[in-house]
Amino acid sequence: MDDLSTQLVSQYGLRAIERCYQLSQISELDDGILRQYLTPEHQACNQQVAKWMSEAGMETWQDAVGNQWGRLTSTSPNAKRLIIGSHLDTVPYAGAYDGILGVMLGIEVAALAQQNKLSLPFHLDIVGFCDEEGTRFATTLIGSKALAGQFDPEWLALEDRKGISMRQAMVDFGLDPKLAAEQGAALSSEELLGYWEAHIEQGPVLEAQQQPLGVVSAIAGAKRAVIEFIGQAGHAGTTPMNLRQDSLTAAAEFTLAVEKLAISAAQSSQQGQVATIGSIAAKPGATNVIAGVTELSIDIRAQEDGALARLVTDIEQAASAITEKRQLTLNWQWTHAAPAVQCDSQIIQLFAKACKQVTDYATVLPSGAGHDAMAIANICPVGMLFIRSPGGISHHPDEAVIDGDVINALAVLYQSLNTKALNVFS
Amino acid sequence: MDDLSTQLVSQYGLRAIERCYQLSQISELDDGILRQYLTPEHQACNQQVAKWMSEAGMETWQDAVGNQWGRLTSTSPNAKRLIIGSHLDTVPYAGAYDGILGVMLGIEVAALAQQNKLSLPFHLDIVGFCDEEGTRFATTLIGSKALAGQFDPEWLALEDRKGISMRQAMVDFGLDPKLAAEQGAALSSEELLGYWEAHIEQGPVLEAQQQPLGVVSAIAGAKRAVIEFIGQAGHAGTTPMNLRQDSLTAAAEFTLAVEKLAISAAQSSQQGQVATIGSIAAKPGATNVIAGVTELSIDIRAQEDGALARLVTDIEQAASAITEKRQLTLNWQWTHAAPAVQCDSQIIQLFAKACKQVTDYATVLPSGAGHDAMAIANICPVGMLFIRSPGGISHHPDEAVIDGDVINALAVLYQSLNTKALNVFS
Repeated sequence: MDDLSTQLVSQYGLRAIERCYQLSQISELDDGILRQYLTPEHQACNQQVAKWMSEAGMETWQDAVGNQWGRLTSTSPNAKRLIIGSHLDTVPYAGAYDGILGVMLGIEVAALAQQNKLSLPFHLDIVGFCDEEGTRFATTLIGSKALAGQFDPEWLALEDRKGISMRQAMVDFGLDPKLAAEQGAALSSEELLGYWEAHIEQGPVLEAQQQPLGVVSAIAGAKRAVIEFIGQAGHAGTTPMNLRQDSLTAAAEFTLAVEKLAISAAQSSQQGQVATIGSIAAKPGATNVIAGVTELSIDIRAQEDGALARLVTDIEQAASAITEKRQLTLNWQWTHAAPAVQCDSQIIQLFAKACKQVTDYATVLPSGAGHDAMAIANICPVGMLFIRSPGGISHHPDEAVIDGDVINALAVLYQSLNTKALNVFS
Repeated sequence: MDDLSTQLVSQYGLRAIERCYQLSQISELDDGILRQYLTPEHQACNQQVAKWMSEAGMETWQDAVGNQWGRLTSTSPNAKRLIIGSHLDTVPYAGAYDGILGVMLGIEVAALAQQNKLSLPFHLDIVGFCDEEGTRFATTLIGSKALAGQFDPEWLALEDRKGISMRQAMVDFGLDPKLAAEQGAALSSEELLGYWEAHIEQGPVLEAQQQPLGVVSAIAGAKRAVIEFIGQAGHAGTTPMNLRQDSLTAAAEFTLAVEKLAISAAQSSQQGQVATIGSIAAKPGATNVIAGVTELSIDIRAQEDGALARLVTDIEQAASAITEKRQLTLNWQWTHAAPAVQCDSQIIQLFAKACKQVTDYATVLPSGAGHDAMAIANICPVGMLFIRSPGGISHHPDEAVIDGDVINALAVLYQSLNTKALNVFS
């Protein structure tokens, strides 16, 4: 890039951060950030985003489920669409950047293209998804699933905490629930070139490697279960160690085995394997009573389905061996399963090349968290660019970004757009 | 014993069981057993017990804190006192036998002595303690501590769940709080020969050994702590295994170490060592969040103070090593400490000899639970006789005894009384 472009990228990158802050003021909470699906705040946010899109030279519209769109229109005949975006909704007491920054960077990429009079052989579509977090109706990825033709009409009956159905909320918002149910927001694969999403990492990997950016290899598949170890309650004083069937020591042995298996799997096959026991409860839970039943949750992830399946099998076998050895009973209930989603290898190469040019490095890492790109991968190639998260913090007011990282991310996205435009032309 | 005595022991043993059942009807609950200190049910129970004591030929009285007494008076000049007893209060939804059976057996021992015109060189005092469980005012062993001169005047300010102070409850019951505070129930060591207590085991040891009775060697000392492992919360998907400071896996490693140390200590030095983690909580406690803080309780016991101290030190060292290795912070707060209480060796021999005669075996075992004998040991030699607990169950409606075991216990107590009487005479 020439000096002028470099200046412009810096200026627009900082504006993207500033705009994240501005949007954070559109909140349902007085003392923090919360923007849920189909609320007045969703409406106000979309309007503000549409205004910025217009200022960047885009046509704007809202689709059948409430996603906000802006388009830099190509003059090429039969132009296809390249989508850049992320989500505009938040969890309660959120940070300012999770999702939002990806939309703002999309707008700045378009603004740069417009400013530089970049000739595009495809429409550049910037999207702000309406609901990725699932805060209001407890179902996630609503906006991106709607694009992928996976809007489930049964969702319309879901109610929020106040008892308002999604159907009613759509009507109040000015949308037609019938259109949503009829997949009115769905896109056709044929018209799509790809989907790019920039997002804060929400993890500590880039920070640990002192890297501003990372190219996402895949979005991890995940399985979750609730597990019960059932032993025998007993008096902590009167039951000798050799006459116990302590469910909590069994759960402890299992917890350690899970940790060991995940470490070993991640080291040996490098598929981003992680396994976490995040909640545990011993019953009856008294200081002087041996726990008869211990319940815990487990969350297992890997960026490749085979690796996930192998780790799951190893963990299940460990649980069985421990309960058999200790003569306990095991209850195992799967509560969630999502396959891994591979990012498109060409987009990975495109982003990696741009990263190398902009930052001298091209770090490739899996995403352990879910993102809109998971849903969009059903209809077109997807790619993601991660921006370093200081402290690995997200879903928290302390969520932050480093100015230079965001500027670098914008440079990488714009460079990639340039290359993509040239490739499509050639 | 001759056939007539054998018949009488059987008859009185069964009567002791029947009376436990009768007392279980005096309850604060409609659907279970609960008898708390200084309640109308405490009053009614004492009255019924006093009636049975009278019928067995005893003088009766209630002392300054509400313990119920009966005396088979010796005609010897300067006769000292041998006390047999246990407690009459209960936990909520209790069984019928915990404590109660020991008092009923005391009465039956006196009834046998009276029936057989046994000449006693000491007063035979049967006591029903007013509060061992501490259910109402959250302080335990009130009745027996009062005998040992350890009634704490500050207890009078303790309030029950309804906000009624112990002082007010004493007045309502008909007692004088001033007298209680002045140690009006305290006994002098010089007048005491000893204290014998029969009690259900509340554990699985005798059942596992197929023994009806056991002679208690010591009442275990205990230490309790609340421990916090403080690590770093993080996203379960985005934080690789090697960048975690998971407080729950640290707590799991500690839990397993505690189990291993207690097993090894109990095997090597046979001091009834046990260690239990009965409650655990991971924070924030979400499926997809690595636990930043895990809090757990620990309860450590042994029948000899040196053995307890050694196990405690080993466990503390394990916690330190684990937190150091995992780079976490450890918070350790002791909440309770009680030294072990040794039973009197002469009483152990007396009971063991009688057990051998009655049941062909003399099993000696520690008591892991606390009992009134712990407090009384401060003023005279104490001994305890355990009666097998089917399933090891206590503090539960399913608490049970086997008829033959109770009859054997009565025979052992009566035989021991006979021997003691002869020894004192000789």
